[in-house]
Amino acid sequence: MNTLLHQYQAVRKHSEHLCRNLKTEDYVVQPVVDVSPPKWHLGHTTWFFETFILQTVKGYREFDPMYNFVFNSYYESVGVRVVRTDRGNLSRPSVEDIYNYRKYVDNAMHSLLQAQLSADLTGLIVLGLNHEQQHQELLATDIKYILGNNPLQPAFEVEKTSQVHDPEKSWVTMESGLYEIGYAGDGFCFDNELGRHTVYLPAYRIATMPVTNREYLVFMQEGGYKQHQFWHAEGWDWVKNNKVSAPMYWHAIDGEWWCYQPSGLQLLQPHDPVCHISFYEAAAYAAWKGMRLPTEFEWEAAAPKFPWGKRWEWTNSAYLPYPGFVRAAGAVGEYNGKFMVNQMVLRGASEVTPEGHSRITYRNFFHAPLRWQYTGIRLAEHY
Amino acid sequence: MNTLLHQYQAVRKHSEHLCRNLKTEDYVVQPVVDVSPPKWHLGHTTWFFETFILQTVKGYREFDPMYNFVFNSYYESVGVRVVRTDRGNLSRPSVEDIYNYRKYVDNAMHSLLQAQLSADLTGLIVLGLNHEQQHQELLATDIKYILGNNPLQPAFEVEKTSQVHDPEKSWVTMESGLYEIGYAGDGFCFDNELGRHTVYLPAYRIATMPVTNREYLVFMQEGGYKQHQFWHAEGWDWVKNNKVSAPMYWHAIDGEWWCYQPSGLQLLQPHDPVCHISFYEAAAYAAWKGMRLPTEFEWEAAAPKFPWGKRWEWTNSAYLPYPGFVRAAGAVGEYNGKFMVNQMVLRGASEVTPEGHSRITYRNFFHAPLRWQYTGIRLAEHY
Amino acid sequence: MNTLLHQYQAVRKHSEHLCRNLKTEDYVVQPVVDVSPPKWHLGHTTWFFETFILQTVKGYREFDPMYNFVFNSYYESVGVRVVRTDRGNLSRPSVEDIYNYRKYVDNAMHSLLQAQLSADLTGLIVLGLNHEQQHQELLATDIKYILGNNPLQPAFEVEKTSQVHDPEKSWVTMESGLYEIGYAGDGFCFDNELGRHTVYLPAYRIATMPVTNREYLVFMQEGGYKQHQFWHAEGWDWVKNNKVSAPMYWHAIDGEWWCYQPSGLQLLQPHDPVCHISFYEAAAYAAWKGMRLPTEFEWEAAAPKFPWGKRWEWTNSAYLPYPGFVRAAGAVGEYNGKFMVNQMVLRGASEVTPEGHSRITYRNFFHAPLRWQYTGIRLAEHY
Amino acid sequence: MNTLLHQYQAVRKHSEHLCRNLKTEDYVVQPVVDVSPPKWHLGHTTWFFETFILQTVKGYREFDPMYNFVFNSYYESVGVRVVRTDRGNLSRPSVEDIYNYRKYVDNAMHSLLQAQLSADLTGLIVLGLNHEQQHQELLATDIKYILGNNPLQPAFEVEKTSQVHDPEKSWVTMESGLYEIGYAGDGFCFDNELGRHTVYLPAYRIATMPVTNREYLVFMQEGGYKQHQFWHAEGWDWVKNNKVSAPMYWHAIDGEWWCYQPSGLQLLQPHDPVCHISFYEAAAYAAWKGMRLPTEFEWEAAAPKFPWGKRWEWTNSAYLPYPGFVRAAGAVGEYNGKFMVNQMVLRGASEVTPEGHSRITYRNFFHAPLRWQYTGIRLAEHY
Repeated sequence: MNTLLHQYQAVRKHSEHLCRNLKTEDYVVQPVVDVSPPKWHLGHTTWFFETFILQTVKGYREFDPMYNFVFNSYYESVGVRVVRTDRGNLSRPSVEDIYNYRKYVDNAMHSLLQAQLSADLTGLIVLGLNHEQQHQELLATDIKYILGNNPLQPAFEVEKTSQVHDPEKSWVTMESGLYEIGYAGDGFCFDNELGRHTVYLPAYRIATMPVTNREYLVFMQEGGYKQHQFWHAEGWDWVKNNKVSAPMYWHAIDGEWWCYQPSGLQLLQPHDPVCHISFYEAAAYAAWKGMRLPTEFEWEAAAPKFPWGKRWEWTNSAYLPYPGFVRAAGAVGEYNGKFMVNQMVLRGASEVTPEGHSRITYRNFFHAPLRWQYTGIRLAEHY
Repeated sequence: MNTLLHQYQAVRKHSEHLCRNLKTEDYVVQPVVDVSPPKWHLGHTTWFFETFILQTVKGYREFDPMYNFVFNSYYESVGVRVVRTDRGNLSRPSVEDIYNYRKYVDNAMHSLLQAQLSADLTGLIVLGLNHEQQHQELLATDIKYILGNNPLQPAFEVEKTSQVHDPEKSWVTMESGLYEIGYAGDGFCFDNELGRHTVYLPAYRIATMPVTNREYLVFMQEGGYKQHQFWHAEGWDWVKNNKVSAPMYWHAIDGEWWCYQPSGLQLLQPHDPVCHISFYEAAAYAAWKGMRLPTEFEWEAAAPKFPWGKRWEWTNSAYLPYPGFVRAAGAVGEYNGKFMVNQMVLRGASEVTPEGHSRITYRNFFHAPLRWQYTGIRLAEHY
Repeated sequence: MNTLLHQYQAVRKHSEHLCRNLKTEDYVVQPVVDVSPPKWHLGHTTWFFETFILQTVKGYREFDPMYNFVFNSYYESVGVRVVRTDRGNLSRPSVEDIYNYRKYVDNAMHSLLQAQLSADLTGLIVLGLNHEQQHQELLATDIKYILGNNPLQPAFEVEKTSQVHDPEKSWVTMESGLYEIGYAGDGFCFDNELGRHTVYLPAYRIATMPVTNREYLVFMQEGGYKQHQFWHAEGWDWVKNNKVSAPMYWHAIDGEWWCYQPSGLQLLQPHDPVCHISFYEAAAYAAWKGMRLPTEFEWEAAAPKFPWGKRWEWTNSAYLPYPGFVRAAGAVGEYNGKFMVNQMVLRGASEVTPEGHSRITYRNFFHAPLRWQYTGIRLAEHY
Repeated sequence: MNTLLHQYQAVRKHSEHLCRNLKTEDYVVQPVVDVSPPKWHLGHTTWFFETFILQTVKGYREFDPMYNFVFNSYYESVGVRVVRTDRGNLSRPSVEDIYNYRKYVDNAMHSLLQAQLSADLTGLIVLGLNHEQQHQELLATDIKYILGNNPLQPAFEVEKTSQVHDPEKSWVTMESGLYEIGYAGDGFCFDNELGRHTVYLPAYRIATMPVTNREYLVFMQEGGYKQHQFWHAEGWDWVKNNKVSAPMYWHAIDGEWWCYQPSGLQLLQPHDPVCHISFYEAAAYAAWKGMRLPTEFEWEAAAPKFPWGKRWEWTNSAYLPYPGFVRAAGAVGEYNGKFMVNQMVLRGASEVTPEGHSRITYRNFFHAPLRWQYTGIRLAEHY
């Protein structure tokens, strides 16, 4: 079997695997605007292959002409779409319909993948697979949100073992000088990683390990959420308006901290890296320590020297284009560039990032207040 | 079999019958705040029997202690509840769980109903059945809303035949004088119908038939939605803010009016009574005709002289207590009295009102802008 | 001098008298949407005479063509207007400009009033004077709001003496039977008072005196604001969302209740009638006493038998048309009818109602949560 | 006379000069949240000297203890403050009161400035003067907003002559390499300019002149506001939600473009640099030209080679700390650091920036949608 077909099958199967413990009802709801219903993710990733690849193939017959309307996410070039907040109001197409849609598109893709493909088409298919992998991470975080905000707190995965000790701490010291940033290989990467370029970095130190729950609790106990001087002005408003006093999914029950996990409500594991925090909280924690978050360039330059991949690590870099960045033409060009304002870059990967979908040059980005991703903190300082 | 048990079984069965054509997903969503997910109706009506009746029975064991939290609607006396806008975010309890809950409660109720019951308990059970019948009408209207606002416009019932001619029009003339208003019999009624009392009515005429789609179209064609002088000030704001130009569920497609029905999208039936309009629209139509809506007292006094029951008819009466009205003590007393401000009274019944759940003294009430009920117009005038 | 001219001069002068202690800055601000800047009231009442009276007079030259845009309040028939929330953003026309506008219009009106006038024109002028008197009451309440919500709590009137004892309490008992409601004389009244008609009232008792601060404090001390069973559902939401725990303008300072008055912050006067409460609070107080508010018909029928005029008294009647009510044609017809939904009727008058502007048939109306008027409570009960 | 005293007097006088043509009413209003009432600026800049300087001087007696509450802008360390949206609701303190406050503080400052001052105190006074100069620019833009959004469009300055030709266009070419960024002298600068540091810049070209109205009109005429592909996603939403189709203050009247200026409504001057545009518009214009905005580093490196100072020029840099930036301790430390998220950097200065208040290293920052500053566009491109 050829590699791309194999990859296609593996990626597509994994999305369905992530949903294996869901009840039909869990596929439908959208409790907040940033979370999408799992059935929408399953349909939207399929729509991507149908719209950008199969529709260009002679003789392909669309599964259902209404689906473009339902499953388009934010591609303005591809017609009117269901407004984002309405996704959770749609009981149809049913979960069964969407699994049928997936089968239908997979069959067509299988045929296509057995033919000789142009480089362009291959590129689009690889993009589609990476797109689906991104949605797999969202599936993981959205399912957690949907069930973790249900009063019954149901489990959907078996429990993972946690770290039993705080990881050994130390610092990587980096000399000032020129570093090369951006993707250099010949594999797949997103357009926002391209334009490898030189940056000058002053000397700095960066922690080998992310901040743990135990460490974060000290910040909480010493009044970190109550002292404005550690916070950005808009972070402080966010704390007060939302009465935030702990990371997302933490619950104080009878004097102990519990934490909603895929395996249900569990006692907080002190040695795990802190998770589900906003950029504001990450920056306030660093300020309270008298340190700061690294920039995305500092992170990328030093990353070969420390382990990473359990948490998306907030950097103090805004999401902006690399020098020479140009949006691709057409709908695919809407992928990244149009979001390059008012978001912060996260680097690394998380425990729910699909295997094979992380790179040292990968630029993830979210709005500063968002917490439902597996986000964490790595400290840095001027040296 | 005793009558109350028989009634209990018939009512409970009918709720499930109304859902017989739903897919699991359709039970879950809440597209707007006034519409509840069908599974919530099924659970909430069951919770009513469990909380107000079975919990008072020795030895009864609650099905699930979390359910009070999930299924309480607006009874402040009975503890914290899921805020109304969150109902559509709850994928659990599942539809299957809720059908099991219904069975569990029904079994307990069957046992109870075979025993000798106090008058108080009997009264509460009858109230519970009437409560469930009210929710049956909401089930009908909420299912219509959920599927009628889905871009796929799915059908959920077989088509009903429509009227083929405009009904014969005439007027009932009523003399000025004293009339008795309110419930007088010894059957069931809601507390808001009690306190039968005298009102003096000036002479008036009232139409024998509600306004039809054909008649309403004339209002539309003559610019009814564009002339402020027919509208209440807040109705006019409502028209402009929501860009309203036709009743709910009407769609102009290629120069013809179509209407979403339980049987799917259908050509507008000109001779059917106009449906799914707000109080503002009803009042504006009447003003445009140089007439007015009847008061609820005029309606009740004249109702024996005309056919009614296809549409809930907006009256020009605000929902207020009858003289001598007193709220019942305890949670059951929250049923009606606390809503007696800023709502308008509707009289009659609709084509989706459950059989046996309409009375000439029945006082239905909704906020002026709401349209998802089967609402219509009957004209009146000073004579 | 003729009577109407005399009246005109007296009314116009009184508006300016109400503003005599204002600084220029106080004329400008609009702290909440229901309150208008004093300079707007001065301009708008003048615009009324200019638009509806002078513009119909041959040879009259408009003061400034932009003023229609600035000073139209809610008359849809008379062109685009500054949206209500924007009134407080307009620094021009200046206060001086507006006083000049008043002089200009007054001069034109003086000339006109010395001529022979048609009955129609006389009617409109009388309407304009009553309109200005309504705005005089709003001037009084809006000035109080503007300065009473300023952190400096400035005074703008000399202190009035308060009652030194609770007024003597008793009840007026009214027999069941037919009563005539609505205006009957040949003086001025608003269109909403017309259509004198018969109502049948069951027997009732109504208090001779409004509820005092001392009495209201007992309600507060016994937890009236914390017990949902006394409140309408939307009133209870209002209490919680706005954290209401006392009437407007009350401040608890070092264990004592103070109250903002036109003379500045003063110790609460226990024997004064309670003031600045919403309909929700009035109804909750009555429910807590085991009584109720009177209907507007009960109020009008009994009013000759008790003193009134210090507080606008919330009734339990919604603001609806009397039988046979018809809106006048044209802009003047927008005066009352279009507000006849979702407001409650207040009867009586208040200590800031202009002399000569109160009648036993007068129907005032406001939305249930509003408190900046001099509103109070009179109890009633079924008898 | 010593220099600092001289400077103090000049700066303080200039603030009042900017208001010389205002009517009292113009000092009071706050038409949108970002604009402050002129009297608030006059009071707040005075409060800065009173709070951070005079309050540390033995024997100084506060002018009014309520003023801290009224005039604190965003200094959390210095107590509760009037929430920002409420500034326009405060008619008191009056304009006269505030001018008296200025005199009182100026007198105390004059005495102080004749004494021998510590370096710390001198530093704070210089900061206070720079702070007041920043507010002078806001005074200019806020006065323009207040009067430019008044339907009467009043003038408040004499007309300035405009450019009669488009400025000569050319490009500055910059080699790739290392550049030093940040303040290096020993005069005053803000803390956010400090930490002079090296950056590596790839080769680029930057325009010698900002984009003119004439050039911007071509963008508009060719549908720039109607083509999503030129816009950031949130910029496109902003265009649609606010129906934006031209820069702020532009009005199309009878087929010609007019523009509100301090001298009133004027015909659009084609050769002036385009003004009052958001970051979104600046970025969209650049994208439509196939170019981009410069980064703030590119701007600073090239600025010695082109004229600047008529418009604040949007850069494509987010407002973030320089390496090694540390917030100062105490309230003064709230000056800049806490705003370093979700804002964009503007470089240069504008025609209303006070003389002596611009530097090549000056970092101005605003939120992307804001337009009431004198903002413009300078193009750049990868070379």
